Amino acid sequence: MDSKCKQNVYIGLLHYPVYNKRMDVISTSVTNLDIHDIARISCTYNVKRYYVIHPLDTQRNLIRDILDYWQQGYGATYNSDRKAALDRVALIPGLEETKEAIRKETGAVPTVVTTDARIYPNTITYRDLRRQLRDGSPYLILFGTGWGIEKETMLKCDYILEPVYGAGEYNHLSVRSAVAIIMDRLLGEDWWS
Amino acid sequence: MDSKCKQNVYIGLLHYPVYNKRMDVISTSVTNLDIHDIARISCTYNVKRYYVIHPLDTQRNLIRDILDYWQQGYGATYNSDRKAALDRVALIPGLEETKEAIRKETGAVPTVVTTDARIYPNTITYRDLRRQLRDGSPYLILFGTGWGIEKETMLKCDYILEPVYGAGEYNHLSVRSAVAIIMDRLLGEDWWS
Repeated sequence: MDSKCKQNVYIGLLHYPVYNKRMDVISTSVTNLDIHDIARISCTYNVKRYYVIHPLDTQRNLIRDILDYWQQGYGATYNSDRKAALDRVALIPGLEETKEAIRKETGAVPTVVTTDARIYPNTITYRDLRRQLRDGSPYLILFGTGWGIEKETMLKCDYILEPVYGAGEYNHLSVRSAVAIIMDRLLGEDWWS
Repeated sequence: MDSKCKQNVYIGLLHYPVYNKRMDVISTSVTNLDIHDIARISCTYNVKRYYVIHPLDTQRNLIRDILDYWQQGYGATYNSDRKAALDRVALIPGLEETKEAIRKETGAVPTVVTTDARIYPNTITYRDLRRQLRDGSPYLILFGTGWGIEKETMLKCDYILEPVYGAGEYNHLSVRSAVAIIMDRLLGEDWWS
């Protein structure tokens, strides 16, 4: 593990339980570029590990094939930078298992932070969370796929990050873009100062 | 055009002339999610238009099929938010044509800004460019695909944005992630204040 910064941040990408367009609770299929793009973001911002969370064996096998190709197969030789990024990815069946894996690795249960387009009582600003991350305790930043994380799971999170507001009223970034922007706000250099 | 903010920013995604891994000058194939993700970012940050720049007919036909599906086909009915995003996308053969289209629309030749992992004499900081954009004149923020924009084209740009530094030494974000982070730094809300 790189120890250049004292923050102890993990990313989780949740494929179940999430909503579909009709607000049914479903599991989503994995998107190849969610694996690659978020792995590269994790490497850039020194995120300790990026957990791809999926409970279904068929999808887990597919994800494992992709990871194997880039971690040990031809991809690792063809593009060693990509191998470095995908080496941060771990495959795990659920949120509880993710929290437990982080607890085993760090000795502490992580603070779980997620994002939502709505405002909650436990909403936290980017400025405050950025400062809080410097305490060095483990944080899991959890992102949902599909039409958002199921409500009961949302309620179990310690904090909800306020939405990313753009200049307009449109609020439909891809999860890949949201992860990029949020990690830059939480862990990027102080470019504005 | 939405007039909520006075900035007059355009995005260009250049597929030629760019380098491949061996530093040959090539044109790259289009990536479907480059169209979608950057269109959604453009809508979020109120970018006036997102130009997908490709000189080859075969690739342009493919891009046009994708745009038609979401602008007029089944996609437009299935997901109207996506239609709203893809309506900002324009297909154009080259950089000069892009500058000319912006000049026709705004009455002024745009200031062209690009990004690179190296530092140049005309490098500009995010803080300074963010401030400068408020002058309301047109700016084209140009992104490259492949292994970066060909050198002669780089030299024609008015400014080069400094690299996005993360916490580590890894500097290989996808172009989709780079666009998300850079647009947030240039046009996002003052979340840090």
